[in-house]
Amino acid sequence: MTRASSAVVVQKYGGSSVATPERISAIAERIARSQKFQPRIVVVLSAMGTTTDELVSLAHSVAKSPSGREMDLLLATGEQVSVSVLGLALQDRGIPAISLTATQCGIRTDDAYNIARIESIDTKRIVEELDRGRVVIVAGFQGLTRDHEVTTLGRGGSDITGAALAAALGASSCDICTDVDGVLSADPNKVPNATQWSEISYEEAIEMASSGAKVLHPRAAEVCMAYDVPIHVRSSFHDLEGTWIRGESDMVMEQAEVVGVSSEKRIAKVTLTDVPDRPGIAAQVFQELAEANICVRLIIQGASTEKVGRITFVVDDEYVSAVRGLLAHWKKDGLAREALIDTDVSKISIVGSRLASTPGLAGRMFAVLAREGINIDCISSSEMKIACVISEQYVDRAVQAVHDEFFPSNDLTKQNVSN
Amino acid sequence: MTRASSAVVVQKYGGSSVATPERISAIAERIARSQKFQPRIVVVLSAMGTTTDELVSLAHSVAKSPSGREMDLLLATGEQVSVSVLGLALQDRGIPAISLTATQCGIRTDDAYNIARIESIDTKRIVEELDRGRVVIVAGFQGLTRDHEVTTLGRGGSDITGAALAAALGASSCDICTDVDGVLSADPNKVPNATQWSEISYEEAIEMASSGAKVLHPRAAEVCMAYDVPIHVRSSFHDLEGTWIRGESDMVMEQAEVVGVSSEKRIAKVTLTDVPDRPGIAAQVFQELAEANICVRLIIQGASTEKVGRITFVVDDEYVSAVRGLLAHWKKDGLAREALIDTDVSKISIVGSRLASTPGLAGRMFAVLAREGINIDCISSSEMKIACVISEQYVDRAVQAVHDEFFPSNDLTKQNVSN
Repeated sequence: MTRASSAVVVQKYGGSSVATPERISAIAERIARSQKFQPRIVVVLSAMGTTTDELVSLAHSVAKSPSGREMDLLLATGEQVSVSVLGLALQDRGIPAISLTATQCGIRTDDAYNIARIESIDTKRIVEELDRGRVVIVAGFQGLTRDHEVTTLGRGGSDITGAALAAALGASSCDICTDVDGVLSADPNKVPNATQWSEISYEEAIEMASSGAKVLHPRAAEVCMAYDVPIHVRSSFHDLEGTWIRGESDMVMEQAEVVGVSSEKRIAKVTLTDVPDRPGIAAQVFQELAEANICVRLIIQGASTEKVGRITFVVDDEYVSAVRGLLAHWKKDGLAREALIDTDVSKISIVGSRLASTPGLAGRMFAVLAREGINIDCISSSEMKIACVISEQYVDRAVQAVHDEFFPSNDLTKQNVSN
Repeated sequence: MTRASSAVVVQKYGGSSVATPERISAIAERIARSQKFQPRIVVVLSAMGTTTDELVSLAHSVAKSPSGREMDLLLATGEQVSVSVLGLALQDRGIPAISLTATQCGIRTDDAYNIARIESIDTKRIVEELDRGRVVIVAGFQGLTRDHEVTTLGRGGSDITGAALAAALGASSCDICTDVDGVLSADPNKVPNATQWSEISYEEAIEMASSGAKVLHPRAAEVCMAYDVPIHVRSSFHDLEGTWIRGESDMVMEQAEVVGVSSEKRIAKVTLTDVPDRPGIAAQVFQELAEANICVRLIIQGASTEKVGRITFVVDDEYVSAVRGLLAHWKKDGLAREALIDTDVSKISIVGSRLASTPGLAGRMFAVLAREGINIDCISSSEMKIACVISEQYVDRAVQAVHDEFFPSNDLTKQNVSN
């Protein structure tokens, strides 16, 4: 990796920020403004608006289960369009700019089409273009294998591109520019009095992102944490400060007990009953899920007191039919007597670095749900997160009630950006 | 260039043939059928339907005069979409197939963005994929410079890609698959009794293509002529024979006197009057037009008997504003007293290899126009073509009348595909 000679800022813009020509023009103006005090800018873009979804449905209209190499070649066009259009918009405003595909700027990945991982970035071309005074616009979400084949990084992949570029370039920050003003304590569409943070830790961001909060891709936060690059989640539409994500030791203010309440719908709970209590069963179950490329969101297995046990796990809705195939085979092989799939469930989580060290937070969450008459189906907790699976019909009410418990009024002045 | 070990067929499909997912599926079925008796197929695609126009207008919505490198990066996505979607459609039908961008299959061009010319094709990858039994789908219209920048070949560029690949691979034929059944003596929308040819010569095809008949790009016919690859213009939607384009010496049947009557609207006639009769003026005029990338369709300069002369030329409508700028400067420099632009004109042409050797054909054309009361504004003729500029309002009637003169009934059985 070649380090830039002076600090670079990476600005990543999501699909909604570049959804229309008017928004792309607005982003061009925004970049022109920021270039005045920050001359070395690398911009990473997602595809315009719903382009990726449209390309996916185009593929589905000619093939039953489109995937693999051709699918990535198709999807990669979305970002190629947005970067070249922004390039034209900047050039039109007299700002020197160059648009690069992943092929052109050396973002090397493995060859796992559709879910590729970045292996390395050769920043030579980017640094050269920055040295020539150009804004460098990089297509997010895509990469190139050793054999020069185009890959994509999966949903939210542009965040990962932004983070990886920020790390490789030793950037002073990785700006995640989006349609919200920063990281909030809950989805403001569901919780109108949600609080915006001025800073949170990498770990909190990762847990929140993994719990359904659409802040940024958790892998992007992991990459920035590993390379110690601060992330700035902020609005694409104005220049106000948003939320900084950084290491705990770099944080200016004391951390809150709970930084976020989030929920996830479109999930399914799978329960295997009467699972023989002998070693290797769980391993087989989860290895086979992994081999089928099914991402498991949550695993809950209580200590069993009998000869048979119960395994519960949660997957995204889209994997239900694939899971059904495995269940039939597990029952046949005697791994479980019964296998139940419940798609009428949702997950509610609270996240915070101090959850583990602050007694009683879990109990307060459970008490709120009980007071609301909401039955908790199962519970999973980690150092920084407590997640409850509940009936889908109650989840919006649950999020508001739990948020009210931990953010009772607007006295969070210590960390709230409003102070 | 690597020659394929056994004969290859190149099939080029235009934008209307791949305009919808349904049509792409139909093309996939067609390729599957033809692969049974022709195992080595290279398919060249244009962008789906009006994609290129939509990308151009997207660019115009963020920049005043989008062009250059970024524009080509944008436009090249159109063909990347169509090739990957066809690849998915073929794979879904169990046909091994691989989609390649120009970057991936070594189509090297010069660096004249937006109007690049193919310099060479490294067919190694294509031949390897054919040897593995795959249908190779190549993105038309695009290329790659020595510096790995994406270029495009200009309007109709996919035809050129098809012809260049056919030449480089020593293909047994270059099929131009389109929404008409073959090459006709006139546009059937204007002349319902237009005749379809079973064969015409390369030269005739080039002249017809240059006269507004939307058969194929004239450069494509030039390339195939140079490498002696027969072209087969045929329908994308059925398997009937269309029109073969080949060398005169290879033609099975005697050539007709006139093979086509065509017209062009959306042109403008520019007349410079009182041009000083001294050497170098015409050179300066046409050099400056070329420097401004203005394509001149026709030049007419009568022998001048006085000290001052007159230069007339015809350009496409789109160049009118650029020409206007040059005219002002020429008047100022004393190259012309008056400079007139008439956009209310059209061109009607007749084309045929035997025009020059058959006396009276030009006279018959002029007589028909006179009988119709249509004034001929100016005339240009070559070995194989006679073109008249007339008022735009009469052109459709003129085409029908001239066609009736040369194709009076359906006695053209000798070359008509209906026999």
